[in-house]
Amino acid sequence: MKAKAKDSEGRKRVIVEAVSPEIDGGRFPTKRTVGDQVSVEADIFADGHDAISASLLAHREGSDQWTEIPMRPLVNDRWTGTFRVAELGRYGFKVQGWIDHFETWRRDLLKRIKAEADTAIDYLMGADLIAQAAERATGADADWLRHRATVLRSKQQPRELRTHATDPTLQELVRRYPDKRFATFSDREIIVMVDPLRARFSSWYEFFPRSTSPEAGRHGTFTDSIARLPYIAEMGFNVVYLPPVHPIGQTFRKGRNNSPSAEAGDPGSPWAIGSEEGGHKGVHPQLGTIDDFRRFVKEAKDLNLSVALDIAFQASPDHPYVRKHESWFRKRPDGSIQYAENPPKKYQDIYPFEFESQDWAAMWEELKSVFLYWIDQGVTIFRVDNPHTKAFPFWEWVIAEIRRDHPEVLFLAEAFTRPKVMYRLAKLGFSQSYTYFPWRNAKSEITSYLTELTQPPIRDFFRPNHWPNTPDILTEFLQIGGRAVFSIRLLLAATLGANYGIYGPAFELLEHRALRQGSEEYLDSEKYEIRGWDIEQPTSLRHLIARVNTVRNENEALQNDWSLKFHLVDNDQIIGYSKESDDHSNLMVMVVNLDPHHTQSGYLTLPLDILEIPPDRAYEAEDLLTGARYLWHGSRNYVELNPTALSGHILKIHRRMKVESDFEYFL
Amino acid sequence: MKAKAKDSEGRKRVIVEAVSPEIDGGRFPTKRTVGDQVSVEADIFADGHDAISASLLAHREGSDQWTEIPMRPLVNDRWTGTFRVAELGRYGFKVQGWIDHFETWRRDLLKRIKAEADTAIDYLMGADLIAQAAERATGADADWLRHRATVLRSKQQPRELRTHATDPTLQELVRRYPDKRFATFSDREIIVMVDPLRARFSSWYEFFPRSTSPEAGRHGTFTDSIARLPYIAEMGFNVVYLPPVHPIGQTFRKGRNNSPSAEAGDPGSPWAIGSEEGGHKGVHPQLGTIDDFRRFVKEAKDLNLSVALDIAFQASPDHPYVRKHESWFRKRPDGSIQYAENPPKKYQDIYPFEFESQDWAAMWEELKSVFLYWIDQGVTIFRVDNPHTKAFPFWEWVIAEIRRDHPEVLFLAEAFTRPKVMYRLAKLGFSQSYTYFPWRNAKSEITSYLTELTQPPIRDFFRPNHWPNTPDILTEFLQIGGRAVFSIRLLLAATLGANYGIYGPAFELLEHRALRQGSEEYLDSEKYEIRGWDIEQPTSLRHLIARVNTVRNENEALQNDWSLKFHLVDNDQIIGYSKESDDHSNLMVMVVNLDPHHTQSGYLTLPLDILEIPPDRAYEAEDLLTGARYLWHGSRNYVELNPTALSGHILKIHRRMKVESDFEYFL
Repeated sequence: MKAKAKDSEGRKRVIVEAVSPEIDGGRFPTKRTVGDQVSVEADIFADGHDAISASLLAHREGSDQWTEIPMRPLVNDRWTGTFRVAELGRYGFKVQGWIDHFETWRRDLLKRIKAEADTAIDYLMGADLIAQAAERATGADADWLRHRATVLRSKQQPRELRTHATDPTLQELVRRYPDKRFATFSDREIIVMVDPLRARFSSWYEFFPRSTSPEAGRHGTFTDSIARLPYIAEMGFNVVYLPPVHPIGQTFRKGRNNSPSAEAGDPGSPWAIGSEEGGHKGVHPQLGTIDDFRRFVKEAKDLNLSVALDIAFQASPDHPYVRKHESWFRKRPDGSIQYAENPPKKYQDIYPFEFESQDWAAMWEELKSVFLYWIDQGVTIFRVDNPHTKAFPFWEWVIAEIRRDHPEVLFLAEAFTRPKVMYRLAKLGFSQSYTYFPWRNAKSEITSYLTELTQPPIRDFFRPNHWPNTPDILTEFLQIGGRAVFSIRLLLAATLGANYGIYGPAFELLEHRALRQGSEEYLDSEKYEIRGWDIEQPTSLRHLIARVNTVRNENEALQNDWSLKFHLVDNDQIIGYSKESDDHSNLMVMVVNLDPHHTQSGYLTLPLDILEIPPDRAYEAEDLLTGARYLWHGSRNYVELNPTALSGHILKIHRRMKVESDFEYFL
Repeated sequence: MKAKAKDSEGRKRVIVEAVSPEIDGGRFPTKRTVGDQVSVEADIFADGHDAISASLLAHREGSDQWTEIPMRPLVNDRWTGTFRVAELGRYGFKVQGWIDHFETWRRDLLKRIKAEADTAIDYLMGADLIAQAAERATGADADWLRHRATVLRSKQQPRELRTHATDPTLQELVRRYPDKRFATFSDREIIVMVDPLRARFSSWYEFFPRSTSPEAGRHGTFTDSIARLPYIAEMGFNVVYLPPVHPIGQTFRKGRNNSPSAEAGDPGSPWAIGSEEGGHKGVHPQLGTIDDFRRFVKEAKDLNLSVALDIAFQASPDHPYVRKHESWFRKRPDGSIQYAENPPKKYQDIYPFEFESQDWAAMWEELKSVFLYWIDQGVTIFRVDNPHTKAFPFWEWVIAEIRRDHPEVLFLAEAFTRPKVMYRLAKLGFSQSYTYFPWRNAKSEITSYLTELTQPPIRDFFRPNHWPNTPDILTEFLQIGGRAVFSIRLLLAATLGANYGIYGPAFELLEHRALRQGSEEYLDSEKYEIRGWDIEQPTSLRHLIARVNTVRNENEALQNDWSLKFHLVDNDQIIGYSKESDDHSNLMVMVVNLDPHHTQSGYLTLPLDILEIPPDRAYEAEDLLTGARYLWHGSRNYVELNPTALSGHILKIHRRMKVESDFEYFL
């Protein structure tokens, strides 16, 4: 190969590499929320000793209008720059570096002046560089620069030439017209997906509308569910999430406690979607009408609750798709349709979609239209059931399609599956994901898992949503039962994660009875029957939940995941960690006794320097759950938690306590 | 966007990601040496629960002949496969994954058989899959498969059908004709650059031909240098490396000890390249002729020594390029050419090339021709002087150009500069690189630096070549002086790195006098004058060096970098580490006392399980430097090293010592 190609290529001396944030070399967008500052870094360097300059270029994806932000060097050839993503949707950024000959000249001139070396020729060289800048400049700037070049070429005294050459105005003006002929760009534009705030901070409450009737045994309706909304809003939640609301199939309908055959009157599982009454765009008649649903959405909105709907892409044998789109399901040699199985177990009430169907493109379009239908009904959040059993390319396509026109819409992936599958779905576009939190109970488990989730690269694409329970998951820890057990899991979920949720009223009513030992299924699960819940029960956790959510709503520190730091406690049963707001003004320290049975105590060690707590003065830790105020001093302080009272502290740190000199009378 | 595009796209359900080895997402080749097994890994998974299969596809870059190697799963969705790179040059590989419907069917069938479930329809489904495989098969295989499909569709007894369906021959045959219609490939072909063995294992000896004359004061010649070769070969080196051999400029020639003006008779610096007698393709007349040089190369080769030549791309003011190619240098406003500077220091004897020259393409071609010229003279290794002061795109281009036709040629980068620059040059194609080893003396420094260098991703592109000294670097540690100091650095360089070198005879003759305190320059440096060395001096380290090189040559464990492991010694002055051969048969343990002044002792802890040493029996540690044999037992053994005797052990581990039952008389 001859050396030439594009004429400038060989002269691009600057290297730009290791750009961050970046997911898989730019293959996937990185995620942020509206108003975030995106802090970009890159390794930028050149051969030799010339000075270099760099900028960050950002725009709305596809737009010609780029904003250029100067980058500044950190250490070890790493540079940084920041831009703000003010609106929903997709932004893009690139990094650009170039040799700065004027700055090299200026730096070397200052060295020579300091060493009292001969500088006569330097002024001539500078004049050339300034004249070149004048060529790039326009208007008055060009004239100014041209004149300065002439001055530097004149026979003035060295002292005067020096003043003209080192003038900061000159530096400023030349910088405005950099020589970017041989500038290098980063390899690939990185996309930033900007989500609504709710993607970063959300408190979810899941319930079954069928169980909201005030009359025992009657099927609950959307109207009953509307009556339940104030109860949920009073607890401080901001997302209310419903299992599928579509017509439920009759064929192979499951009975109570997942029995293979339903008795007369058994309502069936809401996940067996579709009957003669409709499919994914229908409403189960026993819940009411689509107008009732819309009313539910509106009433929720009035209480500042977003409605999240469960979308489960599967069909009961009675689903209209089964007749109309046979090719979307897998045919068996006997002409029957393949039901879901995990051999030898059979789920004959469920037909999975066949993503290898020849007719896949039409199926994709139809499934997309399901989301659009519910968006039209006012739904802005979709909790997607088992996304890991549908083809990955479908999710990447459908989420991008929906969000192009509806960037406010969020998708929560219910992918309780292997970590790489879970992460891939997040990369493909899911806004939030369920996590392994339900099964992380020991201090070491919580620390290592949450550290993984809150550090790059994971945190740039995966937003955890922690659930202590779900209709499918009553963990062995919760099965111990009792107020302390549920409080511990609530406090952890709500303060470790900015996004969390509970499945109620089972959670606040401390429901802990499992189908059988070794199972995580609830006994008498609402998945298969109507439950009556006494939400006014005095043992309910509702007031603690309300307090915790109020603290979350009032303290920005608890509205982000990235600031999480774990701190040393010299007792393995006590976990301590902190979070703070982006501007560091709001600092919260959490201490939780993981042992539901015994009082535990120990010393918590806080890194005062990192948390910006003055090392030499007392500071206050105010427990926002109880109102207790602790006077702390130094990095090591005593904590003690009795689970019969309350298993955790949520402490607001007042970094600086007033002393005598803060008061006027002192003066 | 409508869902369709390429008809198969939407049905590609398998994900292939996180392929390794991979440098910057495949932007740069990964490096191996001839005969290596390349162990490839990737995350491969699909939605749902279908079985998947994967293969590794490898070929000579550009060839249509791909070798397909089945991959096997490790844990956590990670798969692995291995291919061998038998020849010099460039290979490429990809990873491919697909849903294996036959294997899914077979696995589920076996589960149903085990659960004694109904399997009637399974045989029909299997028959369909087998018939499809028959369509993809040819000849007898196709007939066999078609027949088997017919059998499975027949009304045979379940027991017979089961035998036909689960037959391993069937599995084997179907596997031969996989259904890859919807297979997924890894994003990008990864290139593997296959270098000669010398890239991985080399022992370098640098000397100045000018100082090889047996007559004091006379300028040494290539003929004198030929006489020096047996001395070097006896020390066990395999690369002999010469500073630039080109004509030396007169203008601004440096005098002794880098004085700014030469006295009459001062020979000047070999790095001030070019005079009326020629440039980079010329030979300094005082060294002899090009024929003498060729004779030198031939004689070296007969002693199994490769010749490495220093290529320094810069020109003295007298270089023919300066007249012929003014545009390759930077012009100053007064018409003079810009010399090298580091303000306020001036290097007026050196003109750097201008890589932003408009005529860069012609300059690149000329510089390339310099390498080709010396390859024609028999040189196969180039030590490149200060590559970090020349444009990066040039190196990527020129190394690829040279190695396309001469894949046996190696390039050593002398880039004593910032880490990211050093690493970038390695990525661009340099086969080996100098390192920060000269300045790593403490145990913690050595451990962390060598660990970084010998782990992915660095090791996949950066091959360290460790030098205790160079003509420019007499470290403060060496300036302490004395046999122990030099022995320590020799033992470390030669056993930590498979590639190492010394600058002699300064090194073996323990030259430790610096130009002045705080400087790393040698006093009376050969860079500026002719030195007479008494190589027969009795204090010379030559015999220790010879022993160390013999041990290196005889023990494969010391011929690789990747197996390096550091081991615990409960004394910070003693460092312990091991290396082993690829097949684990050759295990070496090194123990070095880093304190040149005092005897140090401690306990070395070896991880017996990892090193495959039986935990319950004695084993032997044989010191290959002294012949001493130590009987060790268990993981913790005592070591003691007296620097007045020898500062280190190079221990060959005999994992299994004979016991009574190994002998015939025992029976």
